[in-house]
Amino acid sequence: MRDKVNLLMNDQKVASSKRWTLKDLAKTLDAKLVGEADQTVAGFATLEHAMPGQISFLANASFESQLAKTQATAVIIHPRHTDMCPVSALIVDNPYLTYAKASHLFDVSPVAPAVIHPSAVIHPQAIVAANVAVGANVIIEEDVEIAAGAVIGPGCVVGANSVVGANTRLHANVTLYHRVIIGENCIVHSGVVLGGDGFGFANEDGKWQKIAQLGGVTIGNFVDIGANTTIDRGAIENTLIGDHVILDNQIQIAHNVEIGEGTAIAGCTGIAGSTKIGKYCTIAGAVGIAGHLQICDGVHITMRSAITRSITESGSYSSGTAMSRTQEWRKNAARFRQLDGIVKRIRTLERALKKL
Amino acid sequence: MRDKVNLLMNDQKVASSKRWTLKDLAKTLDAKLVGEADQTVAGFATLEHAMPGQISFLANASFESQLAKTQATAVIIHPRHTDMCPVSALIVDNPYLTYAKASHLFDVSPVAPAVIHPSAVIHPQAIVAANVAVGANVIIEEDVEIAAGAVIGPGCVVGANSVVGANTRLHANVTLYHRVIIGENCIVHSGVVLGGDGFGFANEDGKWQKIAQLGGVTIGNFVDIGANTTIDRGAIENTLIGDHVILDNQIQIAHNVEIGEGTAIAGCTGIAGSTKIGKYCTIAGAVGIAGHLQICDGVHITMRSAITRSITESGSYSSGTAMSRTQEWRKNAARFRQLDGIVKRIRTLERALKKL
Amino acid sequence: MRDKVNLLMNDQKVASSKRWTLKDLAKTLDAKLVGEADQTVAGFATLEHAMPGQISFLANASFESQLAKTQATAVIIHPRHTDMCPVSALIVDNPYLTYAKASHLFDVSPVAPAVIHPSAVIHPQAIVAANVAVGANVIIEEDVEIAAGAVIGPGCVVGANSVVGANTRLHANVTLYHRVIIGENCIVHSGVVLGGDGFGFANEDGKWQKIAQLGGVTIGNFVDIGANTTIDRGAIENTLIGDHVILDNQIQIAHNVEIGEGTAIAGCTGIAGSTKIGKYCTIAGAVGIAGHLQICDGVHITMRSAITRSITESGSYSSGTAMSRTQEWRKNAARFRQLDGIVKRIRTLERALKKL
Repeated sequence: MRDKVNLLMNDQKVASSKRWTLKDLAKTLDAKLVGEADQTVAGFATLEHAMPGQISFLANASFESQLAKTQATAVIIHPRHTDMCPVSALIVDNPYLTYAKASHLFDVSPVAPAVIHPSAVIHPQAIVAANVAVGANVIIEEDVEIAAGAVIGPGCVVGANSVVGANTRLHANVTLYHRVIIGENCIVHSGVVLGGDGFGFANEDGKWQKIAQLGGVTIGNFVDIGANTTIDRGAIENTLIGDHVILDNQIQIAHNVEIGEGTAIAGCTGIAGSTKIGKYCTIAGAVGIAGHLQICDGVHITMRSAITRSITESGSYSSGTAMSRTQEWRKNAARFRQLDGIVKRIRTLERALKKL
Repeated sequence: MRDKVNLLMNDQKVASSKRWTLKDLAKTLDAKLVGEADQTVAGFATLEHAMPGQISFLANASFESQLAKTQATAVIIHPRHTDMCPVSALIVDNPYLTYAKASHLFDVSPVAPAVIHPSAVIHPQAIVAANVAVGANVIIEEDVEIAAGAVIGPGCVVGANSVVGANTRLHANVTLYHRVIIGENCIVHSGVVLGGDGFGFANEDGKWQKIAQLGGVTIGNFVDIGANTTIDRGAIENTLIGDHVILDNQIQIAHNVEIGEGTAIAGCTGIAGSTKIGKYCTIAGAVGIAGHLQICDGVHITMRSAITRSITESGSYSSGTAMSRTQEWRKNAARFRQLDGIVKRIRTLERALKKL
Repeated sequence: MRDKVNLLMNDQKVASSKRWTLKDLAKTLDAKLVGEADQTVAGFATLEHAMPGQISFLANASFESQLAKTQATAVIIHPRHTDMCPVSALIVDNPYLTYAKASHLFDVSPVAPAVIHPSAVIHPQAIVAANVAVGANVIIEEDVEIAAGAVIGPGCVVGANSVVGANTRLHANVTLYHRVIIGENCIVHSGVVLGGDGFGFANEDGKWQKIAQLGGVTIGNFVDIGANTTIDRGAIENTLIGDHVILDNQIQIAHNVEIGEGTAIAGCTGIAGSTKIGKYCTIAGAVGIAGHLQICDGVHITMRSAITRSITESGSYSSGTAMSRTQEWRKNAARFRQLDGIVKRIRTLERALKKL
């Protein structure tokens, strides 16, 4: 056993995969081939660690110096790197996009067979299409609908009246409450909880009276949701995630949030209740967005920012302070607490000087 | 299938529920009815999207303008809005609290039947009261006690010697380690982990020696715990959550934290070990509270604040900076790192001016 | 039932455990005993709450005053406290480390028997060593290897080709995707997800094209991973966690991160893709570290800091502002947004004064 572990511990290479000729790859990826058409590759690698028989790519100028030394059999490059490439080249306008497409050709992830595991507990009134994979210990409740091509990973719970669209995949141990609607071609990672109660309470004499969360969660098509992310159900209407939204791990989306088409959000970000986020926004990691705000289309927010007001113009927004050595930071942080007084001292100086 | 999905994707209205006459509603909610006593409503909606046959409420002045245009059959309002209400009105002193209470009358969430699913694995020495619902694939370990009226959702694991109090509900896929005590009438959402080991290690020659976490977790009555929140067991004594505490999603509560009665904490907040938080505090989202602090009763902390010292006076506390455009923020953030020097320049100016 | 709950709610003491004579304890812990060799103790307690029959420890000067009043039967202390100790003493050079070691002697956590629960679903091509504990509803997929002494808690899913090393414990409801390699003597807490897809997408005409995440996750020996922490699989190569790394709850580690030996990270911290963290770093809670950075060995980062540049010298680093009352904070935060202008005003003053 330990030998296998040690082997894998030192194994920086991906498992070998289907073997492709460069000719076939170039055709599939719509690339111009410069090199030997019948060479084959059977796995992706970085320029630095590639071995003969693997393919790599160059999409970022900071890795240019690695191109000359690469051991890869072929590299996906931009035309401007043709002369610098010491091995066969697949030449395309957007190497990163071509890498994205090519990556799937070398993916050796296990494919779930389209069968229903005998241990799955499926309510007789649930509708499960013919070619759906349902893993071990899955629970599918009343009036659920699972469309063709969907994969429900082991240990998932799909609550009553929920819908999983065609070709959508729930990885292992995902929890959907009741009335959670997921569109087609989505990927939902393990530990995700969709449709938990929004955090709504009214205070009565110091005691919190829970507000029943009557809405659901509605998720569009081509949505990706990262591990352990949570999206709460709406208080009255639904929480809404638009098509082509991509969400990283451990994001918290509160009740009645709406996220517009194509917006991308990085890990650990939290969005408070009823905030509406526009289309094609890019929100970095660990950002906090207060409730009841409107963020317009095309906004970028840098990592760990706190957003406390609506944003009505596209552009990039930030908050926080830059990092320093703790010793210096302590002094400056202490001064931050005097800032208003500091400005008053400056004003006094300005007046005094004016008099002179 | 797709028709149902499309339908639901556009469906901003809650599923219809039990039908109530306004007369019965007014009686149940202790409201004064102005309007037709025999009109009926069968669902909650916002003022803006309500349709005839639905009830709405007005609790926030910023939605006042929607009252005149609402299509709702009835609205829960404060006496001061009586004249502005174009439809039947249920008049109460605190419309938000009445909405909270009324919401449960229209809740169509599936009710778990008080049966034990045959796939549940229950240790013969566990005590499960007669009218408890135990979902599919639940695991209940040795010497656990589950009190009357409790609901244990599918996929939950309840560790040895733990207790789930009367009428408490664990939603699907909750994990309780051993010796986790939950009181009565609590709600615990999916993905919650209670009683994992506190983060306690002693360093020996660069290697971390784990400290066995011998305490448990004790949770009071009427506590709500949001999805994927984690509460660690104590190192020696128990981690303690008081009665009527409400916790949102993805909160991290470290070992030996104590949280006083009625305190509310929003999502993504983290509390480090051994910190004691008082009663009736309201802590906003993504706050970080350092370890071994004392936060007194009645403290409010604004979102994304870092709390690094104890707080001995009630009131509101904050840290961080306000958001700006990134371009401006960069300049100001650079200046932050010079703050101590800036103050010294001011002092020099003040001295120079004094000499003049 | 309620009596037991009430009892436990007020129960600040750990369950009683194996009874030890002080003589045997001193021998096992390599301590000098000052006191009665045949006295026995059967549980750990804090100095403040200890009762006769329990053992305590003093490792932090701030608890010195509690030593004189303790009811403990014996206390683990440093030689300098010998004269102040009113009861039997186990005298050692590092009381905290000795406490860490002693804690395991009093641990009453249930031990999982080395049997395979009949409800576990184990692929015929998985290799499970003879003395492994596999809990109820566990799913072990194709070509998995589970080494001797491992414990796989109830509800865990272990994906294809993954490896769980000797004596490693997965607590309940842990999810491992395919090709996740965990070394020996690790502890993985509930809700942890290892090997979910890294957040990698290329944008094509406003639509996100997913990049297949071809790498795996490789975790060393003696690694601790806290509840609901997520570690993504690599894009091409593996995400790597070194030996003796300890990770608290709700940490997010993105694809291709590398964490060096012996580094400790507190809860709610997020590390973006491809960042390399050195050895023996200590990273406090809720820190955010941007992607593609290099953090050298021996770095300390204080809580809630944002790290946006590489760190090449060991030492302590911070960002953020110190907490204030919200009223004062608002004024200072507004001034932060004027900082660059403030410095210009100072420069104007300095020039004006120079002219005078």
